[in-house]
Amino acid sequence: MSKPTSVPGNAVFAQSGGPTAVINSSMAGAVLEAMKHKKSFGKLFGAKNGILGVLQEELFDFGKEDPKALKGLTRTPAAAAGSCRYKVKTDADYSRIVDVFKAHNIRYFFYAGGNDSMDTADKVARLAKDSNYDMSVMGIPKTIDNDLACTDHCPGYGSVVKYNATQVMEAGKDTEALYTTDTVTVQEVMGRNAGWIAAGCGLAARDGEDAPHLIYIPEISYSLNQMAEHVRACLKRIGRAVIVVCEGCKNEKGEYLSEVGGAFGADAFGHKQLGGVGEFLANFIEKEIGVKARRNKAGTLQRAGMHWASQTDVDEAYMSGRDAVKHAKAGVTGHMVTLVRKSNKPYTCVTGLAKLSDVANGESLLPRDFMNEEGTGISKKFRQYLTPLVQGQVKVKMGDDGLPMYVRLKRKLVTKKCGEWTK
Amino acid sequence: MSKPTSVPGNAVFAQSGGPTAVINSSMAGAVLEAMKHKKSFGKLFGAKNGILGVLQEELFDFGKEDPKALKGLTRTPAAAAGSCRYKVKTDADYSRIVDVFKAHNIRYFFYAGGNDSMDTADKVARLAKDSNYDMSVMGIPKTIDNDLACTDHCPGYGSVVKYNATQVMEAGKDTEALYTTDTVTVQEVMGRNAGWIAAGCGLAARDGEDAPHLIYIPEISYSLNQMAEHVRACLKRIGRAVIVVCEGCKNEKGEYLSEVGGAFGADAFGHKQLGGVGEFLANFIEKEIGVKARRNKAGTLQRAGMHWASQTDVDEAYMSGRDAVKHAKAGVTGHMVTLVRKSNKPYTCVTGLAKLSDVANGESLLPRDFMNEEGTGISKKFRQYLTPLVQGQVKVKMGDDGLPMYVRLKRKLVTKKCGEWTK
Repeated sequence: MSKPTSVPGNAVFAQSGGPTAVINSSMAGAVLEAMKHKKSFGKLFGAKNGILGVLQEELFDFGKEDPKALKGLTRTPAAAAGSCRYKVKTDADYSRIVDVFKAHNIRYFFYAGGNDSMDTADKVARLAKDSNYDMSVMGIPKTIDNDLACTDHCPGYGSVVKYNATQVMEAGKDTEALYTTDTVTVQEVMGRNAGWIAAGCGLAARDGEDAPHLIYIPEISYSLNQMAEHVRACLKRIGRAVIVVCEGCKNEKGEYLSEVGGAFGADAFGHKQLGGVGEFLANFIEKEIGVKARRNKAGTLQRAGMHWASQTDVDEAYMSGRDAVKHAKAGVTGHMVTLVRKSNKPYTCVTGLAKLSDVANGESLLPRDFMNEEGTGISKKFRQYLTPLVQGQVKVKMGDDGLPMYVRLKRKLVTKKCGEWTK
Repeated sequence: MSKPTSVPGNAVFAQSGGPTAVINSSMAGAVLEAMKHKKSFGKLFGAKNGILGVLQEELFDFGKEDPKALKGLTRTPAAAAGSCRYKVKTDADYSRIVDVFKAHNIRYFFYAGGNDSMDTADKVARLAKDSNYDMSVMGIPKTIDNDLACTDHCPGYGSVVKYNATQVMEAGKDTEALYTTDTVTVQEVMGRNAGWIAAGCGLAARDGEDAPHLIYIPEISYSLNQMAEHVRACLKRIGRAVIVVCEGCKNEKGEYLSEVGGAFGADAFGHKQLGGVGEFLANFIEKEIGVKARRNKAGTLQRAGMHWASQTDVDEAYMSGRDAVKHAKAGVTGHMVTLVRKSNKPYTCVTGLAKLSDVANGESLLPRDFMNEEGTGISKKFRQYLTPLVQGQVKVKMGDDGLPMYVRLKRKLVTKKCGEWTK
């Protein structure tokens, strides 16, 4: 693609889907890099609440934000520009996006998200090209789920593993201390289709005494009977069990455990079990085995845990955003930045490029050989893959009150130029 | 009390009840102090799994542990000697305890726990005295609940507040980023009778935008209608709500919300609601207001969160253990070490003493003026009380795998001298 004009084009940065500890670091990397190249980049806009901000023409100018706040993004969790889960589907929506871009002379669109977002970005790129509007559309990988195709791993994943594995280790210490009453602990973690997050907790188990003792992931199906046997064997061996279960776990019939109705116990009316898979499994263990089971569900805490994020992850997120801008400046469009592991010892990682369409149509599930033979713990191979991703602790800026100082952008919206968006 | 003999007496250290991030620091403070005074203290035993370890005569020798591990206790969560929830009730049990002490020439008993444990310690002290067995029984305060009488605050509390407030802050960032779909977040925290932990999360709210926006504690009763009104008002004001709810919250009838059956919605059969108060409240909000509510329940993670513990708390826990030993050496018995705040700016805190019976029979609930007028947020007065307790971050020792290195004691049991314990 040739550069659109000799006049610098404006840019939009948008964040999409579930927040992570490091998506703001990607935005900082992109924005601060773009600010260095005033000949290429004109105004640098953020879209308030992701693609909704483009559709609703709610844009704010990064140039009007406090420069300290922009730097502070590298140590602030969640999505400071705002995110959303809106799925762009209709032709009218796609046209609207390009219309807003044209109205604000936006020649660069940087979109941080998962595979749905890469699909959206891909379609925007194609539509702009079809309407002869020269622009660069670049994807920046983001997901704690680590399920994006074409990349060794995803920014956001290392931090959620460091957070969850540390806390499963701590829950393990707790269970070890109090197993005479609180014999089992079930920890539910995120991951609808892929077990990357759940399996990542396995890093905490350095030896057979250490938690987690059992890990259940969606890629492997386990019957309730099998699970009960696993737990009984673990109790026999060490008198306690810490179990990590992925929210997307299924039984042998392929049904989500979180949606299995009245399979056991009190409720004979077939009501759907409330409270997710962790609650389900803990109840099952209590009734089936007759020991007390604690339930922990960090929920959104695990994806926002900046206070214990991986510095490696923060740096790679920054690098992904920065390199997206470098590539766009060089004329690349229709691609997502990827992470390419060059070597493991010493660990070196650089960025590469993948076509947005390839990312959009792919999904990365946990390889079977990243789990042990039983399918309830991790393999040495996975440990080698994981370890570099969780290295280094983020130094969070602390306030006088003993709590972190995270930044909030002003997000003062620029004057609208298009009419109202109608859904 | 006169010192028992010119021969050094042996000592037992025991940990009781729910673990905390810092109870091991108290044990380290006590053991390392006792090791300095070989003329007073002979063998230093740990009781495996708390008072059960005394009853079952399962004692291990701290002198046989790696000195590095003993120092590592100050940065290891949970209860490295093991804890339990066994309640000593019968005369036979109490006699058994004193018999085990006599058999091993134990002249010092250090018991870290909450008010039930102080009651047990008090009775042990009285029984020993009644049987003319000279010994010192000292309590060391421990509870994340901060509900012990006679002390300004409890070791364990500062860390759970730092952990929970930080994570509520992070959940707040998450909700702020994704409020267009994930509009409400409900975080359930520990505390059966006292709202200290839930209210402590209020430290995260530096301004009206910040989470938590609503806090519900057991000391104040709220009707479901009131809660719905609070949430609606918050949504109107800022479009989102992060709610902290204490597990012991009750409705206006004084019933635990976690135990209210079928008060609304699907279950007309009067089944008890599963999944605790957070699950209950989130379901209620979804049905009553029609917005999505996320549920977070850190569960045991909050009491084991050493990776983000308060250094002040760790230090005060150490000091509590150390001073219990100093007092015992000086002949004190039947007392618990307390924390006495000498001044707030600069914060200085020393230890004092309270009678075990006074602690056992008291309970400290959150003062009403530590909450704001509405009873859904904290007051300036409470903020001043809290802030010093969460100062300083613990530096956890990290392994090559990017995760903390916590210690595990060997706990090799000494030869038994008494017969089997029969419950």
